[in-house]
Amino acid sequence: MSQKVVTLGEVLMRLTVPNNKRLFQTVNFDVTFGGSEANVGVSLAHFGLKATHITALPHNDLGERVSRFLKLNGVSNKGVVRKEGRLGIYYLESGAMQRPSRIVYDRFDTTFGDLDESEVNWDVVFKGADWFHYSGITPAISQKAADVTLRALKEARKRGITTSGDINYRRNLWQYGKQPLDVMPGLVELTDVVVGGRVDLENCLGIVNEDWETNCKMVQEKYPHIKAFSKTIRNAMSASRNELTAVMYKDGKMYTSKTYEMKNIVDRIGGGDAFMAGLIYGLLNLEEQQTVEFAIAASVLKHSTIGDVNLSSKEEVEELVSGNSVGRLLR
Amino acid sequence: MSQKVVTLGEVLMRLTVPNNKRLFQTVNFDVTFGGSEANVGVSLAHFGLKATHITALPHNDLGERVSRFLKLNGVSNKGVVRKEGRLGIYYLESGAMQRPSRIVYDRFDTTFGDLDESEVNWDVVFKGADWFHYSGITPAISQKAADVTLRALKEARKRGITTSGDINYRRNLWQYGKQPLDVMPGLVELTDVVVGGRVDLENCLGIVNEDWETNCKMVQEKYPHIKAFSKTIRNAMSASRNELTAVMYKDGKMYTSKTYEMKNIVDRIGGGDAFMAGLIYGLLNLEEQQTVEFAIAASVLKHSTIGDVNLSSKEEVEELVSGNSVGRLLR
Amino acid sequence: MSQKVVTLGEVLMRLTVPNNKRLFQTVNFDVTFGGSEANVGVSLAHFGLKATHITALPHNDLGERVSRFLKLNGVSNKGVVRKEGRLGIYYLESGAMQRPSRIVYDRFDTTFGDLDESEVNWDVVFKGADWFHYSGITPAISQKAADVTLRALKEARKRGITTSGDINYRRNLWQYGKQPLDVMPGLVELTDVVVGGRVDLENCLGIVNEDWETNCKMVQEKYPHIKAFSKTIRNAMSASRNELTAVMYKDGKMYTSKTYEMKNIVDRIGGGDAFMAGLIYGLLNLEEQQTVEFAIAASVLKHSTIGDVNLSSKEEVEELVSGNSVGRLLR
Amino acid sequence: MSQKVVTLGEVLMRLTVPNNKRLFQTVNFDVTFGGSEANVGVSLAHFGLKATHITALPHNDLGERVSRFLKLNGVSNKGVVRKEGRLGIYYLESGAMQRPSRIVYDRFDTTFGDLDESEVNWDVVFKGADWFHYSGITPAISQKAADVTLRALKEARKRGITTSGDINYRRNLWQYGKQPLDVMPGLVELTDVVVGGRVDLENCLGIVNEDWETNCKMVQEKYPHIKAFSKTIRNAMSASRNELTAVMYKDGKMYTSKTYEMKNIVDRIGGGDAFMAGLIYGLLNLEEQQTVEFAIAASVLKHSTIGDVNLSSKEEVEELVSGNSVGRLLR
Amino acid sequence: MSQKVVTLGEVLMRLTVPNNKRLFQTVNFDVTFGGSEANVGVSLAHFGLKATHITALPHNDLGERVSRFLKLNGVSNKGVVRKEGRLGIYYLESGAMQRPSRIVYDRFDTTFGDLDESEVNWDVVFKGADWFHYSGITPAISQKAADVTLRALKEARKRGITTSGDINYRRNLWQYGKQPLDVMPGLVELTDVVVGGRVDLENCLGIVNEDWETNCKMVQEKYPHIKAFSKTIRNAMSASRNELTAVMYKDGKMYTSKTYEMKNIVDRIGGGDAFMAGLIYGLLNLEEQQTVEFAIAASVLKHSTIGDVNLSSKEEVEELVSGNSVGRLLR
Amino acid sequence: MSQKVVTLGEVLMRLTVPNNKRLFQTVNFDVTFGGSEANVGVSLAHFGLKATHITALPHNDLGERVSRFLKLNGVSNKGVVRKEGRLGIYYLESGAMQRPSRIVYDRFDTTFGDLDESEVNWDVVFKGADWFHYSGITPAISQKAADVTLRALKEARKRGITTSGDINYRRNLWQYGKQPLDVMPGLVELTDVVVGGRVDLENCLGIVNEDWETNCKMVQEKYPHIKAFSKTIRNAMSASRNELTAVMYKDGKMYTSKTYEMKNIVDRIGGGDAFMAGLIYGLLNLEEQQTVEFAIAASVLKHSTIGDVNLSSKEEVEELVSGNSVGRLLR
Repeated sequence: MSQKVVTLGEVLMRLTVPNNKRLFQTVNFDVTFGGSEANVGVSLAHFGLKATHITALPHNDLGERVSRFLKLNGVSNKGVVRKEGRLGIYYLESGAMQRPSRIVYDRFDTTFGDLDESEVNWDVVFKGADWFHYSGITPAISQKAADVTLRALKEARKRGITTSGDINYRRNLWQYGKQPLDVMPGLVELTDVVVGGRVDLENCLGIVNEDWETNCKMVQEKYPHIKAFSKTIRNAMSASRNELTAVMYKDGKMYTSKTYEMKNIVDRIGGGDAFMAGLIYGLLNLEEQQTVEFAIAASVLKHSTIGDVNLSSKEEVEELVSGNSVGRLLR
Repeated sequence: MSQKVVTLGEVLMRLTVPNNKRLFQTVNFDVTFGGSEANVGVSLAHFGLKATHITALPHNDLGERVSRFLKLNGVSNKGVVRKEGRLGIYYLESGAMQRPSRIVYDRFDTTFGDLDESEVNWDVVFKGADWFHYSGITPAISQKAADVTLRALKEARKRGITTSGDINYRRNLWQYGKQPLDVMPGLVELTDVVVGGRVDLENCLGIVNEDWETNCKMVQEKYPHIKAFSKTIRNAMSASRNELTAVMYKDGKMYTSKTYEMKNIVDRIGGGDAFMAGLIYGLLNLEEQQTVEFAIAASVLKHSTIGDVNLSSKEEVEELVSGNSVGRLLR
Repeated sequence: MSQKVVTLGEVLMRLTVPNNKRLFQTVNFDVTFGGSEANVGVSLAHFGLKATHITALPHNDLGERVSRFLKLNGVSNKGVVRKEGRLGIYYLESGAMQRPSRIVYDRFDTTFGDLDESEVNWDVVFKGADWFHYSGITPAISQKAADVTLRALKEARKRGITTSGDINYRRNLWQYGKQPLDVMPGLVELTDVVVGGRVDLENCLGIVNEDWETNCKMVQEKYPHIKAFSKTIRNAMSASRNELTAVMYKDGKMYTSKTYEMKNIVDRIGGGDAFMAGLIYGLLNLEEQQTVEFAIAASVLKHSTIGDVNLSSKEEVEELVSGNSVGRLLR
Repeated sequence: MSQKVVTLGEVLMRLTVPNNKRLFQTVNFDVTFGGSEANVGVSLAHFGLKATHITALPHNDLGERVSRFLKLNGVSNKGVVRKEGRLGIYYLESGAMQRPSRIVYDRFDTTFGDLDESEVNWDVVFKGADWFHYSGITPAISQKAADVTLRALKEARKRGITTSGDINYRRNLWQYGKQPLDVMPGLVELTDVVVGGRVDLENCLGIVNEDWETNCKMVQEKYPHIKAFSKTIRNAMSASRNELTAVMYKDGKMYTSKTYEMKNIVDRIGGGDAFMAGLIYGLLNLEEQQTVEFAIAASVLKHSTIGDVNLSSKEEVEELVSGNSVGRLLR
Repeated sequence: MSQKVVTLGEVLMRLTVPNNKRLFQTVNFDVTFGGSEANVGVSLAHFGLKATHITALPHNDLGERVSRFLKLNGVSNKGVVRKEGRLGIYYLESGAMQRPSRIVYDRFDTTFGDLDESEVNWDVVFKGADWFHYSGITPAISQKAADVTLRALKEARKRGITTSGDINYRRNLWQYGKQPLDVMPGLVELTDVVVGGRVDLENCLGIVNEDWETNCKMVQEKYPHIKAFSKTIRNAMSASRNELTAVMYKDGKMYTSKTYEMKNIVDRIGGGDAFMAGLIYGLLNLEEQQTVEFAIAASVLKHSTIGDVNLSSKEEVEELVSGNSVGRLLR
Repeated sequence: MSQKVVTLGEVLMRLTVPNNKRLFQTVNFDVTFGGSEANVGVSLAHFGLKATHITALPHNDLGERVSRFLKLNGVSNKGVVRKEGRLGIYYLESGAMQRPSRIVYDRFDTTFGDLDESEVNWDVVFKGADWFHYSGITPAISQKAADVTLRALKEARKRGITTSGDINYRRNLWQYGKQPLDVMPGLVELTDVVVGGRVDLENCLGIVNEDWETNCKMVQEKYPHIKAFSKTIRNAMSASRNELTAVMYKDGKMYTSKTYEMKNIVDRIGGGDAFMAGLIYGLLNLEEQQTVEFAIAASVLKHSTIGDVNLSSKEEVEELVSGNSVGRLLR
């Protein structure tokens, strides 16, 4: 398969407290890596697509560690810039039962926030690409990160590459002087597929309405070039039990996936990115209804493994969509 | 916050078989510590109260280990007596599904059982205290332990300190010649808040009746000074799935908490002590209905972490009571 | 108790990927051992019966490791032949939620497949035996393995020993030139108790019918010496949630056990073998209805511990049958 | 090989602090088992001899754990008495460099100390035995333990079985009212091979002299039936670097082994017992000089594995004696 | 013992790669904490002195983790300021053989660097203090950190408290615009005991000379109030084998300790701080020669445990000085 | 750097018993991968060269695991053929002190042994290559493996690529009907750089002589095209202490490296391959004496990390050669 997807974003080191311990008492950490957009790239690589990730990493052994993480997961690091600086970190205390999971961020002043658009070799990165994906996290980090996102969208456009944006709103970021409404509309102008819920659309695009479908219509009026909207609906009964459904609004129609009941969730971080990867795969290769089914099944499988990234193959997702594999012991 | 609670009781080392293994095949143990009353003190310290625990610990590195456990969890060890002897131990084989958890005790002839009332500096321990708490386990250990409990209650009374007793009946203890009915009534004479179920009231106070509310009334008639009765109701469907509710009888009225369904229980040991701490916190600071809600939510959160003690803050318990945090990912 | 059961079959090393990781990313393995028939022997030894297992193991430290595994679990290794060769292996990636468990086998060209019937000391092995058990896996491995199974059945018959066969059909085996229908009927001729589902009866005995009870009657007509048929019915909702029921057809009557809902399954491998052991124990010691209840409860308990073998005692199974222990904390 | 050795003594659970941590900060323990005499039995079983160990173990899962430890290591438990009580424990903080290893004992009031000589089936235990071994630890535990040692020696004598005693003096024991000089001479009267250093001979037999050879001669004069004396000489430069030599005085001659320099010691506990087992093996099968060489090499190998017991085979000890294996990679 | 020592400095989280792995391939970290001056305080607390540490920690669970680390190790946190910010981190890849240990720092822009002298309650912190200690690392972090150091020295002086400074020069710090020579002389003006080698004296005080004794004399001429100079001499043959000696220049005389050969070093980080603590203890309680012997022995023991802090008691250090404990097994 | 090296050979999974345990008692394994020639490729990739490895791997998750191992370590898998079959395994019990390390192989009938020369895309693999390396292990596995080695040499020759062979003789292999003398001379005909000791030269080339230099001269006479001979000299005092020296015979001159004393060896497996990689690097880039110094230092560093492959960078090796880094703490 020769489809190629380019992603752009920061990769953080995740330090997870093991064994249901609290962060304030831990004596060790499990180490994994993730970042919304890199997670999308890794998942697509596991589906068999070519993936290239644009990011900046420090020039030390931690940067090397992340670089190896990308390579190991089949993501080309031709888009990786190595320079002075620090790696962003987040600490995860996994919840259980009625106790919620908690994240502590240590992600300011990182190498990625200092990535200059001139440091990326756009020709190399986009050569042969079919799709470019970004998220609302990157422009929230720094002016330079916002600039590099805009530049990437322009470079993609220039080459006729389809673009998608997961315009998730992160309240704790946006500390460099700009607000989402200053930046996001300019990006959405260049975005073909928009993923976001009601709150995201409100904060990033100023669209205020109770009903998501109406929201989409309002956005589409403003940005008629947009080809599809999508989001997941998560109903969280506890830290270990959620229900998950996908919806997509495309060409004036709503598509709703099967709802999965997820019990005994192993790790929900990255569930949205796994969905995003499934959506991109689907829009590139499947019919609309199949697309939401594939995307939501991909997200469900993500919840069954540790780490931010979905390690499932395309065949495993298809098995779940077909319902054949559930509860079986595959010999 | 300047409320201060004093607790009295043995602290045991808990050796837990990891990874769903059986005790008879284990090659390692996880080490934690607990004891009904110390668990109450630790939990209150995590709520922000001052806590002082009265106990005796051996003069070796194991005693030092327990002492550090108390300090680490914010409990003052001004009430800790160090002397010759051994540390009590209990072994925990964690159940799963339909397989029950099993405890093997090795708690006879311990340093604590040899604690003499003259060894405690009562003035130091009770200085500024608002509450004293004991349980029915201590007087079941040895004559000296029963004596020290009675003495503590008298010292508390003398200073106008509110007292509570979790009068749980442990059939395997009481091996030093006395029976509960010989000892417990004398302690309840000095107890303001009594926690115990039907079986406990029967064995410790000789009150026999099918209905807990009626029981409380009968006890109150005999001991009119008692201000409140309480207990939890646990409905155990399996080792990993329980339902939990709290009830309190106070000033002639019954208060019943919300019922929590607990799935995927991480560790139920100490659930009652977490409740007790919540109850004390509530009676010191909240209205009656709020008190049972706070206490039961505290107990539920305990079930989500490993170890005998509840590591939740007051804020975390309040979040669960409010229902805001459940199933969320707190960033 | 002096009942003695002899089992015959290969023992494999199981390498399990820990911590919900995928096999393709693992950096360590947990090591356990199992094999359908050895699992039955081990479980019976834990019930207090004498167990002797016939197998072949390599002459190296891995063979020694397996030999110690059997000894540790109370199984006599008087039936163990040590010789040149390799130990069979299987890799287990444990599923979670909607992600199925997966097994990768590496079990060809093993020492066991080369076991010659002349290498077993049949007199020693069968001395004092009450029961002999085999499964459909052994004759699927090699001609020699099929021969040793037939020989064992003849030796058992000769001594008036009851025989049972779990005639499970494994599609991936049977690669030495024979098909199940070439071999299995000859073994069933000498088998008193047959365990198998519809698919097994079809593939091993050529009995084709939708209804299991009708199947059993058809088999019984052809093999009137058979005393009982049995199987479990597993309803798998996910990797961690199954329902389990046992049925037995004996003397023209159907016996159906209680249905257990199993949530948070720890390890389902060997569940069928635990059932088999419970069935043998029941047929030797209990009434029919009690037998299916004991057997299914044994299987349920197996699902609560790691590893292929059921480590539950007879008393623990009886406790579950009685319903007394569920959800309790046994002190 | 059909030589059979019988040993008598307590088996303790050893809880080791892992990873160079201190006992007062540990969060987990590694679990192994050991006891001076059981260690001797286990080592002899690994050499290929038959071994039977006489001891008492509690009737709970910890007793079962120890029983499985013995079985796993090839020691018959026909001499194991199961009864009410507790298992003795010792805690090990492993030293490193200039920091010494430290042991904390919790071994009073154990099941073994309550073993009555009438509870052992002496005929079964000693059937076919060639050798009986005890140590100076057992008679130091309790009157009953002293009695059972004397009885065992008498039973051995009665059957013409060779006897050995490692008459090590443990200052912390002997708390039941007797002193070594009250008890040990009576035991040595019935002992053929005595292992002990200068301090042991002084405390147990009242022989005071600076030179060990002279000591032996003085003991021999008093107890002319003794066939051999032996001991190891340990020169400890640090916790991880020792030198080790064996000496034996037999028939008026001194035999001295090669001196081994041990660097990077993994675990020195049980080094003396490994030596003792090697000595018994040698006296049963080898010439005098070969005996001390075999015994000291066995002890050296013990220092290279974790746990109290020597897991080396006879062939591995012989390889070290021959010098062939040192530093090689055996493929 | 009522001596009280106050220390001032940053505490970092140390993330250590376990099991001889490289940082660029690690999948987990061991978590400990340290900082040059806090290490001194912790060690003194383990010697039985009162210790209070002045620092700033973030207002999140990581700050809480460090706070608990201090409490657990007996250090009062009355000097701990909690505020917004991040915790400094350092990554440790442990060397082995000829491969050196490597540290990667991530310690810029931390909470500590933002500590304002007005945030410390100097009266509370210095109440009853006998000694104040700082190091050359703190003034190298930020202007505020330099200011708080100067202020602390003035506050100590004002109260007649002895002061010591480990004036170690860290080339990678000093990035806020000042150079050591701009800052350090002003601090040394207020310092009674100076610890530093030739390179430190050169960079911090501008004293250039090949011979350390001469250096000391030159410094003393310039700063006649200084009471003592000291340093350790490390001869590093490999990552796991070093020789260590202490020297002290006091009242015109040189004192040189015994030289220790350290083989199989467990962890050398914090060895200098353990020495510093030993030196302070000695100067407060011992003769000069005893002081250097105590200090160097303390440092040697530090090398035998994991983590930045010395966990040895005063008695353990004395045992090593006396030579009694080396290579022994303490029962 | 654009030098490219191609290697050919089997990659095995290594299952290592952790924590100084014996193989016959292990409950888990650490998983790493290695194979003589792949180890060379990985090491060269860590030096910054391009590396491509030719091998065959099974079509299952284990094959995927190995493929990821190669990618992670910078080795191109354009030479990897995926097909049906099994992965070879070896079990490692790490020695300590006087106890030797032991390997148990399970490497017959593997996918690699079935690799057909027609399955490799020689043009792709050798494109731009500067060097080809093989070892004496591959032709010892199967006729096909011998054929593919010969073919690779011919393909390399055809393209003017320098070739090297580590002609190590493995007695346990060569079971497919051929002997070394039937095969190896034909390979050496096409080999420019020969690495091997006296025993290897005797078994593979029939050159019998006590002195290695004389051996080399005799081989050179027979095969005048050979450009260089080399080997390491290992003096093994114990499992954890070895001395290591390199020698090279080139253009009639002998070059001898510095001798390194290696204490506390972490893992010696792959030491020879690390040397080989260093030698190739040196011959491509350095003078003769520098070459042996670089190669031996590379091998020494390998001994300091776990696993078969050398993870050191070129700069780290150069640091050791220069002697600057030894025993330092690199901040």
